Amino acid sequence: MEAVIITVGKELLMGQTINSNLATIARRLSQAGLKVTQSIVIDDRKQDYFDVLDRCKGDVIVFTGGLGPTEDDLTKEAVFDYFDIETSLNQTVLDTIKGYFKRMNIPMSSANLKQAMLPKDGVVLNNPNGTAPGVYYHLKDRHIILLPGPPHEMTPMLEQACSVLEKEMDYHIHSSGYKLVGIGESTLEEGMKDIYSMDPDVLVAPYASVGELKYIFSSKNKQSLKKVSQYFEEKYRPYIYGTLKDTLESVVVGLLKESGLTISMAESCTGGLLASRIVNVSGASDVFKESFVTYSNEAKKRHLGVSEETLQKAGAVSEQCAKEMALGLHEKTQCDVCVSITGIAGPTGGTIDKPVGLVHFGIWINGGVISDHRIFNGNREMVRYRASQHALNLIRKGLIQ
Amino acid sequence: MEAVIITVGKELLMGQTINSNLATIARRLSQAGLKVTQSIVIDDRKQDYFDVLDRCKGDVIVFTGGLGPTEDDLTKEAVFDYFDIETSLNQTVLDTIKGYFKRMNIPMSSANLKQAMLPKDGVVLNNPNGTAPGVYYHLKDRHIILLPGPPHEMTPMLEQACSVLEKEMDYHIHSSGYKLVGIGESTLEEGMKDIYSMDPDVLVAPYASVGELKYIFSSKNKQSLKKVSQYFEEKYRPYIYGTLKDTLESVVVGLLKESGLTISMAESCTGGLLASRIVNVSGASDVFKESFVTYSNEAKKRHLGVSEETLQKAGAVSEQCAKEMALGLHEKTQCDVCVSITGIAGPTGGTIDKPVGLVHFGIWINGGVISDHRIFNGNREMVRYRASQHALNLIRKGLIQ
Repeated sequence: MEAVIITVGKELLMGQTINSNLATIARRLSQAGLKVTQSIVIDDRKQDYFDVLDRCKGDVIVFTGGLGPTEDDLTKEAVFDYFDIETSLNQTVLDTIKGYFKRMNIPMSSANLKQAMLPKDGVVLNNPNGTAPGVYYHLKDRHIILLPGPPHEMTPMLEQACSVLEKEMDYHIHSSGYKLVGIGESTLEEGMKDIYSMDPDVLVAPYASVGELKYIFSSKNKQSLKKVSQYFEEKYRPYIYGTLKDTLESVVVGLLKESGLTISMAESCTGGLLASRIVNVSGASDVFKESFVTYSNEAKKRHLGVSEETLQKAGAVSEQCAKEMALGLHEKTQCDVCVSITGIAGPTGGTIDKPVGLVHFGIWINGGVISDHRIFNGNREMVRYRASQHALNLIRKGLIQ
Repeated sequence: MEAVIITVGKELLMGQTINSNLATIARRLSQAGLKVTQSIVIDDRKQDYFDVLDRCKGDVIVFTGGLGPTEDDLTKEAVFDYFDIETSLNQTVLDTIKGYFKRMNIPMSSANLKQAMLPKDGVVLNNPNGTAPGVYYHLKDRHIILLPGPPHEMTPMLEQACSVLEKEMDYHIHSSGYKLVGIGESTLEEGMKDIYSMDPDVLVAPYASVGELKYIFSSKNKQSLKKVSQYFEEKYRPYIYGTLKDTLESVVVGLLKESGLTISMAESCTGGLLASRIVNVSGASDVFKESFVTYSNEAKKRHLGVSEETLQKAGAVSEQCAKEMALGLHEKTQCDVCVSITGIAGPTGGTIDKPVGLVHFGIWINGGVISDHRIFNGNREMVRYRASQHALNLIRKGLIQ
């Protein structure tokens, strides 16, 4: 079955609010085995509703927004008008709305009366967090779901609507997802051709974000899904760091915990970003105690014992300096994994030999120091983020060896 | 002029990504005086493009997404097919893409060739952060803008597109914008009533994000704009930290530079986030040399000289500990401004006395230590971000006294 999601509101079209309802509803409908084919944001004029209903072809149409008591709130009126569905005052719903105002200890406005105007044979979706009830209505060949706009009101009512919907459906969609690091989208896509054509029953969806990729496979057929995703897993194993629920930092913290190891960092260009990502994992305190941001040469010497000679001859952005930073950090903290990052984040400071984006890494791991370097592209923030991502991947690879 | 925004991607329709591009583009187009009448999210099938182009009525049509090298990336192909616009290989663009891969030191895939297929008389929008170029194309009665999907690639290219667009429009919208910190949206909105009704020629648009607010005023009438924005400026001066081009960290680095002062941090729950935000300001090295992430009690004692007694009696999350951290940091680094942050980011670790979200701050500034604390709401990441934001605002206020 196919679904269309229609969100209503000027604030979305002026960019004042991010349309998070779309993601919430789309995710829930996908889980229920529906294919969301389109989503439309409309203004709150009656003609907009009619236009959009003229065009949209979904078996399921979900509206969110426009169920409030004000003149701008037209969703019910417009949709029921369009489909010629008669409404009348629903006394039970009216009593619920009255009860809400009583609980909140504020007088009910007569404008709220219209929220109780509902079709006789629809399913009323109760709103535990507001006054606007939702509606599920099954037309001959279509399911219409009307939900309010505020996310905390909408979310529990979406659940009610989906459980009504799920009862009426006869299949279920299975899905699996992977996150990958250390491989570019186009390189990976080139190798994906056989996978795309492996089984027409399996939908493959790639998602690229800064420093990582995500692949999601979904199918009605459990066997097909298993076959394709296992093949993918084997082909790209070195790059797969986890499933959709994971972050690279949560995987690294998990690996450290499993082995009972501790970690510390000495960061120059990333300036604490790597430590901050590790700390963002709840429970990081088991593996992480302290770290240093050694931004100046002086700090690299004083805290990490980097030699004046290295700084003079090789420079602060060099393999030698990164190694000395990692070694010095290990001496200082005695942590099992000690990571150093030193680079040129830009936009200034680059030379021909050492361009903007060049970052050197040193890692004390498994009892010795390894080093690596990369040239990252993008603005200052991205170079720094990619550097933290690469460092996490180096640690991950070191830990699973 | 009216605009329609079309975002392309399965991931949006499966709810895997929140459509933040819509808000970014809608805001920018509104600023340019356009009325966004509708926004549509489509899947990446060619027929979807044709259907949506058949229907949409905007003078300006902005597409985002589907410009990558993969088979799924159909935007250019579909849009140029629809409008019968011929494309050919653009050698300059191809060289840029080749240069990108050379800089990254990875081989270019043949799949990237199609990214250089462009119409002869369109305006190429350069992509500083990726391989996909964008396109601005002026048909007889329509402006077509094609932008890539990843927000960090899209945003600077949107600027390029809007400046081309603005040149072609017969009126100019003036705008002014302010960023505010330390005041909540509903408090501010309550005081804004007089400003909203001050001049019908001035559009006022509030935007809330984590830890700060943004107000943009725009008008065709320069005088009206000046009157309203000056009134706003006077009314909310203590909270206004800068204009749209500023970030709170860039303002703080600027203030430190002006006064020739240096800064360092000792971070516990923020775990390097504050240092990282400071380092993200280009030229931060003038004011920032080093900082410490002291996550464990042991690290707080060893590096900052926090007393065992304080940790035992008041605890690591206390005014006393925050003050000792700031004092110890000042002794260690001799910096002019020394900031400490210690709190409970959650989701676990809270008690009745010290709930999740409680964060204590200590700041050595102007020759003495001040302290402050707040209880922030939101998840772990938000608590940590709000804490870094509050610390920056404390520093800012200390510096402009």
